[in-house]
Amino acid sequence: MDERLKKQLEFSLEIDKEKEIYRQTHITGLKRKENDAEHAWHMAIMAYLLREYSNSDIDILKVVLMCLIHDIVEIDAGDTYAYDKVNLETQKQREEIAKERIFSLLPAEQKAEMVALFDEFEDNVTPEANFAHAMDNLQPLILNDSNNGADWREHGIFAEQVYKRQINTKKGSNKLYEITEQIIKKNTEKGNLK
Amino acid sequence: MDERLKKQLEFSLEIDKEKEIYRQTHITGLKRKENDAEHAWHMAIMAYLLREYSNSDIDILKVVLMCLIHDIVEIDAGDTYAYDKVNLETQKQREEIAKERIFSLLPAEQKAEMVALFDEFEDNVTPEANFAHAMDNLQPLILNDSNNGADWREHGIFAEQVYKRQINTKKGSNKLYEITEQIIKKNTEKGNLK
Repeated sequence: MDERLKKQLEFSLEIDKEKEIYRQTHITGLKRKENDAEHAWHMAIMAYLLREYSNSDIDILKVVLMCLIHDIVEIDAGDTYAYDKVNLETQKQREEIAKERIFSLLPAEQKAEMVALFDEFEDNVTPEANFAHAMDNLQPLILNDSNNGADWREHGIFAEQVYKRQINTKKGSNKLYEITEQIIKKNTEKGNLK
Repeated sequence: MDERLKKQLEFSLEIDKEKEIYRQTHITGLKRKENDAEHAWHMAIMAYLLREYSNSDIDILKVVLMCLIHDIVEIDAGDTYAYDKVNLETQKQREEIAKERIFSLLPAEQKAEMVALFDEFEDNVTPEANFAHAMDNLQPLILNDSNNGADWREHGIFAEQVYKRQINTKKGSNKLYEITEQIIKKNTEKGNLK
């Protein structure tokens, strides 16, 4: 096997580990926590189907790819819960080290492309990154809402904390932010959010 | 919420169930079986990174989308193991009913688009479908190979059966079929395939 293909297949096998990185969000029905690979798959399909609500024109292939790869660094760095203050402080540093190790398995130009895509998502400045972030927020929101806010109740989350995080959704989609507000309001009234 | 967005979000929530459809393939390390959502995510990333090996020019967004949605029907129809003769006979019929129910949750034109994409994958005639099928074969192959052929050993699979299934890979990529042959040969020599 030539060196290039060998590297591509090694990377392909390595990312299998993302299926073992569990998030705080539960799948519908509360049977178990969701893992990063499932989350990424779900976001990618939602991005494609909801692309008409993006505030700006977007390259949808780029958004889909961002959704698919944005959590690969968590294979080494682990999942950092959106409301975990302590670990959020070291998240960036942990993810930078992971990014270097994991994407270096690829041929150089593919590594560069994937790192650029990951960095663009993280920087959250371009319309594509904004919309991918809207999906990163909306996907767990609809799951948690379907589970009657169980993830928020478990962690004693305040509505204010959710608003603060979900403000990112507005950068990607005003329309989807309206839905977000409705869901937060409903769950606050139900007492699922403090 | 307007009717269109409501339908799109209902569909988005419905597909969460794909995370509970387990395949016969185990994730690396053999901890547990892989589910359809993880498999689709894995295939989609591999399709993008390995697209240079497609026999023909392909619209890579279309391939990625095919990979992401090709197993949604299994939410109702269940996973049919590639070497399960009895259930393979009713697979088509079961999946047609599921396709109609699940994609009907979407607005009409998005339903039509998703159904067309699914049918194109199933028909396996276009270069995009051929390459998506190559991924559908290669992804479990590299997992199973990394697990020393445990899935084949568990089911007592013959090398001939794997060759017959993997011939699809050749339609999508001669280069990746070479790798497939090497992997089958190695696992036959090891006694993992009969």
